[in-house]
Amino acid sequence: MNPSVDVPKLLSGDRRTIARAISFVENENTGAEQFLSDIFKHTGKAYRIGITGPPGAGKSTLTNKLAKFYRSQNLKIGIIAVDPTSPFTGGALLGDRVRMSEVEMDEGVFIRSMASRGSLGGLSKKTREAADILDAAGFDILLFETVGVGQSELDIAGAADTTVVVLVPESGDGIQAMKAGVMEIADFFVLNKADRPGAEQAVMSIKMILGFRPHDEHSWLADVVKSVANEGKGVEEIAASIERHKTFLQSNGSLEKKRSARMVAHIEEIIQNKFRLDFWNEERRKLLESKIFDVMHRQQSPYQIAKELLK
Amino acid sequence: MNPSVDVPKLLSGDRRTIARAISFVENENTGAEQFLSDIFKHTGKAYRIGITGPPGAGKSTLTNKLAKFYRSQNLKIGIIAVDPTSPFTGGALLGDRVRMSEVEMDEGVFIRSMASRGSLGGLSKKTREAADILDAAGFDILLFETVGVGQSELDIAGAADTTVVVLVPESGDGIQAMKAGVMEIADFFVLNKADRPGAEQAVMSIKMILGFRPHDEHSWLADVVKSVANEGKGVEEIAASIERHKTFLQSNGSLEKKRSARMVAHIEEIIQNKFRLDFWNEERRKLLESKIFDVMHRQQSPYQIAKELLK
Repeated sequence: MNPSVDVPKLLSGDRRTIARAISFVENENTGAEQFLSDIFKHTGKAYRIGITGPPGAGKSTLTNKLAKFYRSQNLKIGIIAVDPTSPFTGGALLGDRVRMSEVEMDEGVFIRSMASRGSLGGLSKKTREAADILDAAGFDILLFETVGVGQSELDIAGAADTTVVVLVPESGDGIQAMKAGVMEIADFFVLNKADRPGAEQAVMSIKMILGFRPHDEHSWLADVVKSVANEGKGVEEIAASIERHKTFLQSNGSLEKKRSARMVAHIEEIIQNKFRLDFWNEERRKLLESKIFDVMHRQQSPYQIAKELLK
Repeated sequence: MNPSVDVPKLLSGDRRTIARAISFVENENTGAEQFLSDIFKHTGKAYRIGITGPPGAGKSTLTNKLAKFYRSQNLKIGIIAVDPTSPFTGGALLGDRVRMSEVEMDEGVFIRSMASRGSLGGLSKKTREAADILDAAGFDILLFETVGVGQSELDIAGAADTTVVVLVPESGDGIQAMKAGVMEIADFFVLNKADRPGAEQAVMSIKMILGFRPHDEHSWLADVVKSVANEGKGVEEIAASIERHKTFLQSNGSLEKKRSARMVAHIEEIIQNKFRLDFWNEERRKLLESKIFDVMHRQQSPYQIAKELLK
């Protein structure tokens, strides 16, 4: 077993051990993979919820309020806040994190922030590993929160059982310009800050777009829930929609399917990483270095060198 | 040779052939790699400039004006506009693209927009391949433009010889919150919209942060250039800074080093992709599928299955 993480203590839900386990895995320490393999049999119980949307939609507040709601049902909540916009908006996001303070002193809530930058294995890998640790430690519900820019919301959707896309009335014109990708990942929408002007129009725009989704009588019908998260309005309705979606997924086997697909992707990723580590031994590194002069002088192409290395 | 792209016509700079070649490669058609390998010997002449910064900093306008300036020197300009924020801000970015119109009818300018979403090989791969095509087609300067969110600005910096980070007075507080990653990629900063209040403070903030960079007498000293891009102010100074950086890189061998490192990364990527395609044959796919039940029921971990598959 692993010397650095006390597995029985982790399984008992000890907060320090959880924090240490996540860092241990994040830093890609020797034995991290063996540790994850060891705790895997204790995972699979937590329900995983992704919350994404544009900057300023109130995702953190909503996550905070949802966590409070689940706490009132005596459930244990893990929150993984993913911050992919660090370069230019560091300050603003720091503000977001502060808004989590309502639940952060609660023993039944564990919050972990993750930055996507500088991550070796990518965001999805880190998020999943932290989620598995919290899952094994007995958390009932895992909330992944991320701002939707570029790739991160797809990673989150890939890691979640239910994905909630949060918009605001100001998203207005943007709603119609939203790309198919976001529409596909949303199991339902939340129109937050619904006390502001333009809320009804925004709801109608979303519904109109949802109407274009191909569906038959067996399909899940995505809907829009209105909320004013900072006043706690709509939070119960959101939790009810999540529950409804969960029941739907369980009733027709799609939860199992979704989770199987996630496992397949996970295994593919492990193999890809292992290959890279094994392939680049000293001999191949030297061969590559000896060829770079030829590439720089256009005597051979990168594709030809790759072929040679793979021989 | 390749049946779909007329290489001699591409090398002569024919616009339709360029457009077709980029699409051909983007769609990962059979023969795309052979085509890229064939044209590789004609690349290496273009100077590659990355332009990144937060949304609303005026990157597109600046790119537009820079292109106009280079045109006045009779240079041929390729612009690759990378759009990683499609999900929620599609509309706004479309607006950006429209602002390129000043140069888009110019025969000496070729503009290509790329979306990062749904890209198989990732943004850096697509961008580099399009750049190689434009390079082979005889463009002297390639401008990569992207909003800095998450990963895209790192990809751009990896693809560019000189990277320019554009900020505005409104970036104010954000400047001090900027992560080390952005500071590292900036070969120099542009403070755009410098006619607005707060410009001097912003310049001072940037200079202060630049002062913290470790450096000795051989280091490149990054600086800040002020501009009002929509009035064309500061554009010549930016071009001069780019030229100064280029001369610096050439004088001490670091351009060669930078480009060598890029080739190494390129070769590693080709190998990684080839491995994935070769590894996942029908037999291994079936073996994986047969194991998923055990994984779902926590009889075996994904790590154990990966090990088995790699045997």
